[in-house]
Amino acid sequence: VRRLEDVGEHEWIARLTRRLSGAGKHARVLVGPGDDAAVIAAGRRPLLLTTDTLREGVHFRTRWLTPRALGRRAFAVNASDLAAMGGLPTFALLALEAPPATPVPHLDALVSGFASAARETGARLVGGNLVRGSALALTAALIGEAPGRVVTRAGARPGDGLWVTGQLGAAGVAIRALTRGRQARLSEPPRRLRAGSVLAGLASAMIDVSDGLLQDLGHLCRASNVAADLEIEHLPVAPRCQRALGPAAAAFAAIAGEDYELLFALPPRREQALARVRARLGCRLTRIGRVRRGRPRVRVLDGAGRPLALGRRGFDHFR
Amino acid sequence: VRRLEDVGEHEWIARLTRRLSGAGKHARVLVGPGDDAAVIAAGRRPLLLTTDTLREGVHFRTRWLTPRALGRRAFAVNASDLAAMGGLPTFALLALEAPPATPVPHLDALVSGFASAARETGARLVGGNLVRGSALALTAALIGEAPGRVVTRAGARPGDGLWVTGQLGAAGVAIRALTRGRQARLSEPPRRLRAGSVLAGLASAMIDVSDGLLQDLGHLCRASNVAADLEIEHLPVAPRCQRALGPAAAAFAAIAGEDYELLFALPPRREQALARVRARLGCRLTRIGRVRRGRPRVRVLDGAGRPLALGRRGFDHFR
Repeated sequence: VRRLEDVGEHEWIARLTRRLSGAGKHARVLVGPGDDAAVIAAGRRPLLLTTDTLREGVHFRTRWLTPRALGRRAFAVNASDLAAMGGLPTFALLALEAPPATPVPHLDALVSGFASAARETGARLVGGNLVRGSALALTAALIGEAPGRVVTRAGARPGDGLWVTGQLGAAGVAIRALTRGRQARLSEPPRRLRAGSVLAGLASAMIDVSDGLLQDLGHLCRASNVAADLEIEHLPVAPRCQRALGPAAAAFAAIAGEDYELLFALPPRREQALARVRARLGCRLTRIGRVRRGRPRVRVLDGAGRPLALGRRGFDHFR
Repeated sequence: VRRLEDVGEHEWIARLTRRLSGAGKHARVLVGPGDDAAVIAAGRRPLLLTTDTLREGVHFRTRWLTPRALGRRAFAVNASDLAAMGGLPTFALLALEAPPATPVPHLDALVSGFASAARETGARLVGGNLVRGSALALTAALIGEAPGRVVTRAGARPGDGLWVTGQLGAAGVAIRALTRGRQARLSEPPRRLRAGSVLAGLASAMIDVSDGLLQDLGHLCRASNVAADLEIEHLPVAPRCQRALGPAAAAFAAIAGEDYELLFALPPRREQALARVRARLGCRLTRIGRVRRGRPRVRVLDGAGRPLALGRRGFDHFR
């Protein structure tokens, strides 16, 4: 019998998603399982729903982050999934798992961090749950609304440009150092909510970069049924990653996860519109490749346009 | 420094709830943290939001339930929180934690069980998440809507009768046997969605019985700022519990959890209305006590009206 470690997180989810959508359409489910968030019809505006977990020993170790920063991070990684569809968070639930010996002030700071990060985006923590566990784990569920158009992973067309917000690789370098027992500061994920809601009006497809650019671009390609070229010399590599890794920095930044930037496809006819909104996004934008016709597959090209093999493709919980 | 095991789940949640409500009102949060579900304004009808976790080694052991029954149970315990406010589930998210060696067919059956239990109530599983963990854990978030009035834990008044749906103690007896290594069948929680939505129109306060009747009645009393008398000889003890425990059955049924019945307070002037809807509820109803003026405190009375001490009050994750 096959086990999760044989199949991997992403293949299991892809199969499950196909099976669940086989159960037939539901009039109020506008986007079902398999994207960054689900979109449902409820009242005037569609609602976006998403859930994500941060687990001690998997996503973090306690000495990496203060309890407050951990709470803020749990909100941020969930909000990023809403941003990737053009949504803004409105309400949040927080399910906690904690060992009996957890100091109460730690747990209080964790929830305060989560609640204050929510309030800063106009959202509210409205409920939650606490169970005994062997490690600390935070599972948030976020409800969001989109001020305008909602964009999924599934609309990229051949000829579209591929763009990314901000810079890549800094979180990966910090996590690598921390994992090796060295000191490093794991910064709070960028908040791309405003950028996401503006870009959703222009992009043909969008996803947040959580498991690594290469892997998340692969998800976008599979959902859109297209291929892509990634021009690695155009990657906006974070200075911290560049300093730490030198010539290997761009390849590292292409597979390191935890950046929580937005990756999107843009039809050429919308480039002028993008130029007009650019100043409002609050972050840099970089064109890093293009969408091609073909089976879902990402080709990484060097400066001379030659294909490169990067080895590992990004994060999977079970492989 | 105080630890979770010193404070306990319920005291920690009560303190947190007070602190969070100190952050000021939000126009769209109709019921905030601390009740069975949160209620928010969104479109025509209020939305209800709730989250709950089933964790291996805490709420179940794998040999107790098939993966499919476990998935169904994860949906049912969350739906019960909506039922307790008069809500019906509409959409669900399922965040899973699983060890790498988990057989894929088990995880598939678990999700199928959850999704089919959702569909049977008219709800849809629209998204989720999967992370690596040391044990199996299922955290669901449910979104619901109320066809009519929403009822909280906080409206019971002195003179109200206390009522409970169904029967108590069967799940507790099964879990006790299973924990001791004996064979027993842990039945699926009753589905009190229809009863909950009808009763919400009449009850002054309602809660589901998950941590044990005595403890959950205590929650209702604290939220309503009233005292209560529980007449133990009137408890609807499940035949299975009666057979297993004889004269000790009623006391056991008062503190055993996992029943997922509804406990509610009913003003005397609504008793005739209750009699009229009774046949539509799909379950028995029993009057088990009354609400009194006084500091939040539950008194257990024997058949002669004498106070009884039951010792342990119900389930707490940390005490």
